[in-house]
Amino acid sequence: MKSHTQHLTFNVPKRMDFVNITSQVEQALRQSGVREGLCLVNAMHITASVFINDDEPGLHQDYKDWLEKLAPFDPSPKVYRHNRTGEDNGDAHHKRQIMGREVVVAVTDGRLDFGPWEQVFYGEFDGRRPKRVMVKIIGE
Amino acid sequence: MKSHTQHLTFNVPKRMDFVNITSQVEQALRQSGVREGLCLVNAMHITASVFINDDEPGLHQDYKDWLEKLAPFDPSPKVYRHNRTGEDNGDAHHKRQIMGREVVVAVTDGRLDFGPWEQVFYGEFDGRRPKRVMVKIIGE
Amino acid sequence: MKSHTQHLTFNVPKRMDFVNITSQVEQALRQSGVREGLCLVNAMHITASVFINDDEPGLHQDYKDWLEKLAPFDPSPKVYRHNRTGEDNGDAHHKRQIMGREVVVAVTDGRLDFGPWEQVFYGEFDGRRPKRVMVKIIGE
Repeated sequence: MKSHTQHLTFNVPKRMDFVNITSQVEQALRQSGVREGLCLVNAMHITASVFINDDEPGLHQDYKDWLEKLAPFDPSPKVYRHNRTGEDNGDAHHKRQIMGREVVVAVTDGRLDFGPWEQVFYGEFDGRRPKRVMVKIIGE
Repeated sequence: MKSHTQHLTFNVPKRMDFVNITSQVEQALRQSGVREGLCLVNAMHITASVFINDDEPGLHQDYKDWLEKLAPFDPSPKVYRHNRTGEDNGDAHHKRQIMGREVVVAVTDGRLDFGPWEQVFYGEFDGRRPKRVMVKIIGE
Repeated sequence: MKSHTQHLTFNVPKRMDFVNITSQVEQALRQSGVREGLCLVNAMHITASVFINDDEPGLHQDYKDWLEKLAPFDPSPKVYRHNRTGEDNGDAHHKRQIMGREVVVAVTDGRLDFGPWEQVFYGEFDGRRPKRVMVKIIGE
């Protein structure tokens, strides 16, 4: 069994934004030499997500509006108890639960075995600082 | 290490519905010959989910009502920017994020190692056409 | 390839609560002898979650309030059709979908390869009875 570990770092200039990281995951897969196996991609921070969906800017803006409605940003300590700790990112911990922490992708014939429109995104909900994503590939 | 790849195809006659695919995943596992490992099951389309829950029709209707409340179907380009692309399935991309893209199931002694009520479902949110589910099993 | 299977049992005294199970997952990993691989942790019951986030009591209370708003407890058969079966836990099946069934964690150098604040939680939404969590580790 082969295994390969790689950390990607992102510094998203906005509080909330989505970055297409598919090509970076594909590059990690090529470096791994794995032809058949599983590829885990997860946010290493708890105010961020990794998810798979469409690379369509209108949809991304829809997601942002929707997440803002489901878990609005509010830095005050009144809405989110978490912000009583001195943080202002209570909302980000909620948005991340909707969008998920991780994806697991099948590796077949040395490629990410995707459907027609699947792309991997890093979802940032408390940006403006460097944060990491784990890529772990096992197989042979 | 053994690996096994199988695509299942579903053509759900309704826009939104859930299909119990547990026996098809079990069949793929038998074909793999894997006794100990992991089984990934994921939607290959970004307007569909694979999830694990109860096979109870009342619950499934509850889920549909709830998802419709959280992300209502609206084909107009006013509610979902995504529908300005000519699509009418903006809602489906949101429903899929709530229900998730994939499940990973432990394989023990050649069986899906499930709790008492766990069943695997394909969740369709933009049906009426053939769509695929990936089953990838690795182990030995 | 090595594999290791372990069931953890929790009997949470409240209907809804979160339990930090990180040290128990780490213990299972040590017992597995796996140095490089993947660790799956999933709820074996469909009214419970396993998720990764911050071990901060204010945040946990925020999550509970938020989940209660998104899917309120209501034992009557009027709000949740599922409760027409004699159950009173329709809400719990919804809360579990928001928080997720499982996490997959990278194993590197014999450790759970976590970011700075990542902790694994068992999320109970229909407690007051013993329920199980699966830990499955594969690798070498």
